[in-house]
Amino acid sequence: MKINVERHKKAPIFDALVEYHRDRPIPFHVPGHKMGRVFDEAAQRWFQPLLGLDATEVRGLDDLHNPEGAIREAQELAAELFRAEKTHFLIGGSTVGNIAMIMTVCRPGDHIIVQRNVHKSVINGIILARANPVFITPRIDEKTGVAASISARHLEQAVRAYPDAKGIFITNPNYYGMGTDLHQIVRIAQEYGMPLLVDEAHGAHFGFHPDVPFSAMDAGADMAVQSTHKMLPAMTMSSMLHVQGKRIDRNRLSQVLSMIQSSSPSYPLMASLDLARRDMALYGVSRINDVLAIVNQAQNWMDKHVTLFQRPDPVSDAYETLDPLKITLHTGSLINGFQLQSLLEEYQCVAEMADRDNVVLSLSPGTSREDMDRLLEALKDIETRISVREAQDVGKKEGTAMNMENVVITSPERMPAEVMDSGKEPVKLVDSAGRICAESVIPYPPGVPVLIPGERIEPKHIEQIQNLKQAGAYFQGIQNRDMPYILVTEA
Amino acid sequence: MKINVERHKKAPIFDALVEYHRDRPIPFHVPGHKMGRVFDEAAQRWFQPLLGLDATEVRGLDDLHNPEGAIREAQELAAELFRAEKTHFLIGGSTVGNIAMIMTVCRPGDHIIVQRNVHKSVINGIILARANPVFITPRIDEKTGVAASISARHLEQAVRAYPDAKGIFITNPNYYGMGTDLHQIVRIAQEYGMPLLVDEAHGAHFGFHPDVPFSAMDAGADMAVQSTHKMLPAMTMSSMLHVQGKRIDRNRLSQVLSMIQSSSPSYPLMASLDLARRDMALYGVSRINDVLAIVNQAQNWMDKHVTLFQRPDPVSDAYETLDPLKITLHTGSLINGFQLQSLLEEYQCVAEMADRDNVVLSLSPGTSREDMDRLLEALKDIETRISVREAQDVGKKEGTAMNMENVVITSPERMPAEVMDSGKEPVKLVDSAGRICAESVIPYPPGVPVLIPGERIEPKHIEQIQNLKQAGAYFQGIQNRDMPYILVTEA
Repeated sequence: MKINVERHKKAPIFDALVEYHRDRPIPFHVPGHKMGRVFDEAAQRWFQPLLGLDATEVRGLDDLHNPEGAIREAQELAAELFRAEKTHFLIGGSTVGNIAMIMTVCRPGDHIIVQRNVHKSVINGIILARANPVFITPRIDEKTGVAASISARHLEQAVRAYPDAKGIFITNPNYYGMGTDLHQIVRIAQEYGMPLLVDEAHGAHFGFHPDVPFSAMDAGADMAVQSTHKMLPAMTMSSMLHVQGKRIDRNRLSQVLSMIQSSSPSYPLMASLDLARRDMALYGVSRINDVLAIVNQAQNWMDKHVTLFQRPDPVSDAYETLDPLKITLHTGSLINGFQLQSLLEEYQCVAEMADRDNVVLSLSPGTSREDMDRLLEALKDIETRISVREAQDVGKKEGTAMNMENVVITSPERMPAEVMDSGKEPVKLVDSAGRICAESVIPYPPGVPVLIPGERIEPKHIEQIQNLKQAGAYFQGIQNRDMPYILVTEA
Repeated sequence: MKINVERHKKAPIFDALVEYHRDRPIPFHVPGHKMGRVFDEAAQRWFQPLLGLDATEVRGLDDLHNPEGAIREAQELAAELFRAEKTHFLIGGSTVGNIAMIMTVCRPGDHIIVQRNVHKSVINGIILARANPVFITPRIDEKTGVAASISARHLEQAVRAYPDAKGIFITNPNYYGMGTDLHQIVRIAQEYGMPLLVDEAHGAHFGFHPDVPFSAMDAGADMAVQSTHKMLPAMTMSSMLHVQGKRIDRNRLSQVLSMIQSSSPSYPLMASLDLARRDMALYGVSRINDVLAIVNQAQNWMDKHVTLFQRPDPVSDAYETLDPLKITLHTGSLINGFQLQSLLEEYQCVAEMADRDNVVLSLSPGTSREDMDRLLEALKDIETRISVREAQDVGKKEGTAMNMENVVITSPERMPAEVMDSGKEPVKLVDSAGRICAESVIPYPPGVPVLIPGERIEPKHIEQIQNLKQAGAYFQGIQNRDMPYILVTEA
């Protein structure tokens, strides 16, 4: 990366806040804590220094919604580092970024091609934009059973079937760090003139080192949203939206962001984005290098000592890239994912998430060798504990959870936005065939929705849900585990 | 207020975060700074202790979007203190609260009755909901020239003219602390069966003391959004949405909030709401008492020593209540509001906002007697300085800015959402008659829009804008001060 290191030593938002504080202003402005002068006493020791920087749009501190000073400069530095033409700081998380990307390209009724295993904020963005989604079923990874990425071939089928679609939305990588062949996806998007929008929430560190995947911007996507807070040192809820090229209406993007982001944006959050950019500009390569060394050492050790918990292969039929900073442990038949997650907590190792079959550990430049040693010791100990105990029902049956039907391109019968505005009622799952589904029904694994609002429930869906339930999948949606009800639109 | 003080000594979210931190977890979860283990070095002294509480939805920390533990308990305590049936913590500011209130009651095409001088987030909420606004022109306060509140009489006209409207939206108080007779407004809303939604962003302290106005919840509004961060000791962007009664679809409200708020909500922000609630529950009355004593003393002093700067009357034809924690200084003819704001900054006194004719100072329990003394000294000094200087053009002409036409109830010709989705072009203001306006054009003072997206531009609007510009009003919207252009929809 060729950046001007001198320029990147600045942190314009942070610097401006410190300068404002240094001037000892008498704040006759919001917030009400008046830069920390009044605040719950017991909590002062946690909140106090930062409250001094929790300011508002006074002179010198610029305006996120119309940046002309420190915020503009900070965003320009971020754009340079993350190789975008323009970067927007997000203080509403990647949630608002995903919504904004969709609302920027779609008007009501427009089609948008969407990877089916997207984050719920994407479905919400589709509802807010009143768009018509066209879903591409992702490929399922055989080893871990999780929904990974879409294939370029399936995307090509979709753009041919829906040439009027206003954009392509993919999630890359998925929660487990699995990603698609972005260059192929970009090639198809460009060939058909459709903007490519990438939810890169889990990939803020991408492109900083040859041993992590390249970023969506590098691959040529039109827009990408990164949860800076997830993988880099920024505060929770602080994200960035990167944009490049001529296919995106930049005015509309700014307008949408101004609509859904707070008009009182948090300066500590914005400053933390500024500081994460500085940190990565100055030390990014070595920081990623350090954590990769820890990961590599751990992998070698695990190859020798951990036999029960499998890791995904570097590539598979379901993905082309794998983020080394996500360690996925596939739990096999002696224990399920939730049990392993709980056992790890006995050793103070707190995982990012678990599904029935897997535990996901999220690493970052903040992960130390000692952290990793504690994890490895815990895993070894847990292996010993569970390999000597009696066989028990761990609530899963292999083979059934992955039995998703191979439907590739679908569009719901009714627009999700219309379903949201309709009357809804719960009906027994077994009696629901023929009704329009009014909730997302998502089994984990594989993490790809069986039903999405607006889709008509068919007997095969009911059977699939029952099989997945029997196999011990955890469900989002579907009330009541034993006697399942499903939310449908009123007849 | 009768609350169970023992119960309110808890701060469930803050307590849970401290407990999680105390257990010394090894975070294999987001955020990437891993509870502060990696962060920009120069900024550590500001961010460090709080990063230890910047956690995510791990066990024991509950889930904002489906609260069943600490967050639920904290919201219940807040509901008790603020006398709501249910309180939602907002980490996207009052912006998301205003949007959520409108989207909860309106489906596309529905009418909603709206006070015309609302915050831009309300217009944005109307666009997102694709609602048809019916505007009520507020009353203009003669002394200060600012748009204050709507009258009960005008509201009654509006509900009779639009009996199909799905709700009534008012901003109460306005930025200057001026409020309407809420009991009358509630009476009309209830009589016509329309939910009353109140943007109470500036009134989080209302109802805590007999000498501040009562709150929207106390008056019987159906929903109210309060910027807890503005007047109480919470972090910027932390707000609450209160709801009561049977007219609001609670499921839809929760769904909308889940759609537009981050799925990675900031725990420090949520904890700061929890702590602001605790602080106000335990010390609220005495805190408000203390700052009111400071205000009263200052007012007595100002009555004797400050002659150039006038304060609003306690009530006027344009408002029925006035928040004592907002000190508005009407600047008269020797100086304009922006100049006074700048002069005050020379004394380190930083005001909340200024318009051509006024400076607004925002006080809170964090305002000390020393702060106030510094302000009063500054004002006295500034008076001396400007009363001895030569007469100069302060860029305003009395009388014209207030010359707003007395239109009371209007609905735009096209829905604002349709305008957002249309092509737009800038045209010279003088050539714009007959076109559909595509931006909000808001002069300060009085702070009530001359035009809103979807309204047809008439010669009288152009004349009004020209007069206001000549009189020195500051404009939101309208590009280029000297040769003004206005954004319209493509013909």
